[in-house]
Amino acid sequence: MDKNLENIDGLILTDLDIIAVQGGDVMHAMRNYDQGFQGFGEAYFSKINNGIIKGWKRHREMTLNLVVPLGSVRFVIMNDDGRLKDIVISENNYKRLTVPPMLWMGFQGISETTSIVLNIANIPHQPDEIDNKELSDFSFDWAK
Amino acid sequence: MDKNLENIDGLILTDLDIIAVQGGDVMHAMRNYDQGFQGFGEAYFSKINNGIIKGWKRHREMTLNLVVPLGSVRFVIMNDDGRLKDIVISENNYKRLTVPPMLWMGFQGISETTSIVLNIANIPHQPDEIDNKELSDFSFDWAK
Repeated sequence: MDKNLENIDGLILTDLDIIAVQGGDVMHAMRNYDQGFQGFGEAYFSKINNGIIKGWKRHREMTLNLVVPLGSVRFVIMNDDGRLKDIVISENNYKRLTVPPMLWMGFQGISETTSIVLNIANIPHQPDEIDNKELSDFSFDWAK
Repeated sequence: MDKNLENIDGLILTDLDIIAVQGGDVMHAMRNYDQGFQGFGEAYFSKINNGIIKGWKRHREMTLNLVVPLGSVRFVIMNDDGRLKDIVISENNYKRLTVPPMLWMGFQGISETTSIVLNIANIPHQPDEIDNKELSDFSFDWAK
């Protein structure tokens, strides 16, 4: 686990393997016995273009398991005490980010081409377990 | 289900939704109540470069659920009777291909840029449930 994650409970950053294969690599995402796995509800992709910021969103029930097989994405996570974590994962820093419920999250595409995020979630999408805030509702400087 | 799949038992092609989102779309992959879901063992990516062919491989236990969030991939599936199915899925023909155990499969990257395949499998990777053959072991013309 990354040192800088120790003080938000449940946030886990896990190294993932990339297996070099002629003609196209195999990239691990998640196994049912991995740290952070809370059951399978749904898997879906979010694409994010360069410079775009999506946020803030908080899941009250869903545990997210986020993998970036293409591009580079900055995730900013905030707990109720206003404690912030600023994490970049990418093809070149290939890790899985586990985000437990009740944390606010925003994310930003930071590679020239569109990035892809896979979320392996423990429950299917349910709009009524999601809280939303405007980007401007939290004072975080995404330009830094 | 696609008409041309009716005669290989268990092969399922399912339309998937793409939700248009400013700055980057959301693309469905699989929910735990979807057709073809056989439990969650592992999710992993296979990248495949333009023109590259990987095959043939047969899983004796794994059910594959294949989604292509980037690029375009041709999948060729063969049963024991030598019956062939030739299916292209892509960002623009966005579907999930469910492949039950005991079918031979090969696949080919057919977009200019590298394609990405996500497999949501019912069991974790286990080398001992996989049979392999050389591409030349089956007479299939990938150039067509």
